[in-house]
Amino acid sequence: MFVYADNAATTAVSPKVVEAMLPYFTEVYGNPSSLYSVGQKAKEVLEESRERVAKVLGASPREIYFTSGGSEADNQAIISAARIGEKKGKKHIISTKFEHHAVLHTLQALEKEGFEIELLDVHSNGVVSAQQVADAIREDTALVTIMYANNEIGTIQPIAEIGAVCKERGVLFHTDAVQAVSHVHIDVKEQNIDMLSISAHKFHGPKGVGVLYARGGIVLTNVINGGAQERGKRAGTENLAGIVGLTVALEDVVAHIDETNEKLEKLQDRLIEGLSKIPYSELNGDRNLRVKSNVNFCFEGIEGESLLLLLDDKGVAVSSGSACTSGSLDPSHVLLAIGRPHEVAHGSLRVSLGEDATEEQVDYIIKSVSEVVEYLRGFSPFWGDLVSGKRPHVFAEHTVA
Amino acid sequence: MFVYADNAATTAVSPKVVEAMLPYFTEVYGNPSSLYSVGQKAKEVLEESRERVAKVLGASPREIYFTSGGSEADNQAIISAARIGEKKGKKHIISTKFEHHAVLHTLQALEKEGFEIELLDVHSNGVVSAQQVADAIREDTALVTIMYANNEIGTIQPIAEIGAVCKERGVLFHTDAVQAVSHVHIDVKEQNIDMLSISAHKFHGPKGVGVLYARGGIVLTNVINGGAQERGKRAGTENLAGIVGLTVALEDVVAHIDETNEKLEKLQDRLIEGLSKIPYSELNGDRNLRVKSNVNFCFEGIEGESLLLLLDDKGVAVSSGSACTSGSLDPSHVLLAIGRPHEVAHGSLRVSLGEDATEEQVDYIIKSVSEVVEYLRGFSPFWGDLVSGKRPHVFAEHTVA
Repeated sequence: MFVYADNAATTAVSPKVVEAMLPYFTEVYGNPSSLYSVGQKAKEVLEESRERVAKVLGASPREIYFTSGGSEADNQAIISAARIGEKKGKKHIISTKFEHHAVLHTLQALEKEGFEIELLDVHSNGVVSAQQVADAIREDTALVTIMYANNEIGTIQPIAEIGAVCKERGVLFHTDAVQAVSHVHIDVKEQNIDMLSISAHKFHGPKGVGVLYARGGIVLTNVINGGAQERGKRAGTENLAGIVGLTVALEDVVAHIDETNEKLEKLQDRLIEGLSKIPYSELNGDRNLRVKSNVNFCFEGIEGESLLLLLDDKGVAVSSGSACTSGSLDPSHVLLAIGRPHEVAHGSLRVSLGEDATEEQVDYIIKSVSEVVEYLRGFSPFWGDLVSGKRPHVFAEHTVA
Repeated sequence: MFVYADNAATTAVSPKVVEAMLPYFTEVYGNPSSLYSVGQKAKEVLEESRERVAKVLGASPREIYFTSGGSEADNQAIISAARIGEKKGKKHIISTKFEHHAVLHTLQALEKEGFEIELLDVHSNGVVSAQQVADAIREDTALVTIMYANNEIGTIQPIAEIGAVCKERGVLFHTDAVQAVSHVHIDVKEQNIDMLSISAHKFHGPKGVGVLYARGGIVLTNVINGGAQERGKRAGTENLAGIVGLTVALEDVVAHIDETNEKLEKLQDRLIEGLSKIPYSELNGDRNLRVKSNVNFCFEGIEGESLLLLLDDKGVAVSSGSACTSGSLDPSHVLLAIGRPHEVAHGSLRVSLGEDATEEQVDYIIKSVSEVVEYLRGFSPFWGDLVSGKRPHVFAEHTVA
C-alpha cells in the first residue's frame, strides 16, 4: 500500500487544476502587460482570478497581490509593516516562538536592523491567546504576526480574537494562513486580518505561486523591484498559468471545507486513538483546536529520521517536523516551543491526511507506525535506559486519547 | 493572418516543455525537502535540472540558484553585491542608462540607502563600450551590472570584454541576460561573468521561474528569507514543474541558436529593408550588434500606442517599448538613452520574431506597418506640421538599410 500523508508539506496538483492551467501555457500565453489582444486576454484572466481569490477570502480585488509563494508573501507583509512602522518610530514586532521560518528569519533580519522582536511563548497545547497579544502590545508596536494554523502540529490560533485586539489597539495584524486556508473558514474583514499569506501548493495548486492579501490603505514595500506588475508592488511577468491554478484550487478546496472536515475528523479520531496505544507516546498540540488533517505524535526513544525512512519502506510518506527544515539535525523549534524536552522532540511524527484519505489507509498507518516504533526501540540504547530505569520516562505509559 | 511578433515580451510555452512539466504536477509532486521516496525523487530531478542548466551556461551546479524569474534574479544579484561591497566600504555601482527596470529600480532603492549609482551613457547605436566601464571603475566600486542584450532595441553589449575589465580590476560583474541567452552563446567562465540572470518565459519555458548564476565564493543575500531551499539562499518550496520546464526549454533553445540565428538573420534583413522604405523612419540600435530576432523602428509623427492597436486589428502582435512599462505614457528610457528626441521616442515599434517566423509573416508585418503608419499620419496634426515645414524633420526622408 502507498499512502501519501504529508499534505502539510505539499500536495499533488489536482487534475482539474492542471486542466485549467494548460491553456495558459500554449494558447493564452500573452504578457498581461501587452496592449494587443493576446496580452489583453491574459490581463482579463489575471484580473478575473484576482476577483475570484478576493471573493474567497472576503477581500476586495485591489487587496490581492500574487506572489511566488507563501514565503515571499510572508517576507513582503512583514517588511512592509516594518517600513510603515519605522516611519512613525514604531520598531516593536510581536510574533510567536513557533512561526514558520519564513516569518522567523524575516524577523531576525529586521532585528539586525534594530527592530525589537518579541516572540510570545506558546501554551503546551500549541495555542497562543489573544490576551497574551493584548498584554504584549505597546505604543511602539508596528506589527503582530501570528500564524493561523501551525505547520507542524496543526493547532489553530484564535485569529479573530487576536484580530479584534489588534484593531482596537491600532496595530497591523498579519497571519501566515498557508496551513489554514484549506481547513478553516477565513474572512479577512470579519476576522480583522490586515495581511494574510497563502500558498497554492498546500491545497492542490501548483508550486511557485501564492497570495498576499493586504488591506486597502496598506502601502506595500517591494521585495522584488522592477516592472509595474501588481500595481507596482511585485515586479516580474505574471505567472498566469500558476495564478489560474491557484484560483481554481482555492475555490475548490474552500467550497468543500465543511464536508472534508466532517470526513477527516473521523479519520483523525481513529488515527489518534490508534497511535495513542503505542506506549510512551503523546499527541502534540491541542486535541480539538487543530486542523482535521493533522496528527502529530512524539514517541519516547525514537529518532524521527529513522522512523520516516522505515515508514517510507512500508509505503507511508509522512514527516518529522516540517519539510523546510528536514535537512536539520536540530529538534523542531515548534515542539520545543510547546515544552517538549529535546530528547522527545527528536522523535516526532507528523501525519497530514489528504481529502481522499480512507479508513484503510489510516489503519495501515497505525499498524506501520506501531511496528516501526517497536522495532526501533528494540535496539535503541536510549530506550534501553528508559526500560531499565536509568532514565526517567517523560510520558506516561498510556494516555487517554 | 495572425503574427505573434512580441517574443521579447514573452513566448508561448513549447508543447515539448509542457509535456516535460506535466509529471511534476500530479506524479512526482513530493516536496524536494522531504526524506521519503516521492520527495527524494523530486530532489533528484531538482539537482539534475541544476546540473543541466549549469552545463548550458558553463557553470558548476552549485553556482545555479532557481528563482521566481529574471526580476527576482536581478534584484538578488545586485543586493548581494551591494552587501558584499559595503562591508569593505565600497558603495559605488556602475550600470547603464538603458537597463531593465528590475535593475534600475533596485539601484534606486540602494541609492536611497546611500550607494552612489553611476549610469553610463549609451552610444547612439545602443552599445556601451568596455572602455567606458574601465574609465568608470573606482577603488570603491562594488559592482558593474550591464545587460547582455537590451530588451527594447536588442543591441548586444561587449560582455566578454567588460567581464575581462572587471576581472582585472577585481570588481564584481553581473549581467541581465534575460534577452540574450536564447540568441547568443554564453559561457560564464570564458566571459568572466560573476553573476547572471535569466527567465524561462523568454525562451518558451513557463512564466514564474528563472535562474541566478552566482560564481562560487559569492555569498548571496536572501531576497526571500525562510526555509533552507537553494542552499539557504532562496526560501520557498521549489517550483519543480517550472524548473524542469526552464531546463528543457533552455537546452532546446541553446542547442539551436546557430541555425535559428542563420534563419532569423535573413528575416531580420528583410524586415529592416521593408520598414526602411517608410519615409522618415529609422532603425533603433546598431544594424549588426543586435539579436537576430529584434527589429526596432522609430517613425516620425506617430504615437506608438495607436500604432500597436491598429496593428492588433490586423492580427499583428508587436510592442512599443517593453511590456513592463506599457501602461506608462512616458517615452522609452531606452530610446532616450540612445539620443532619440522625445517626439520620436513616442513613435517606436519593436518587432521580436519567434524561431518559427516565416517570410510571409515578415512581408505581412511590413505591409501592415506601412499601411498603418500612412493612415495615422493622415490625420496627425504633428505630421501635418512636419509636412508643412512648421517643424523640422528629425530623420532623413529615406535611409539606407
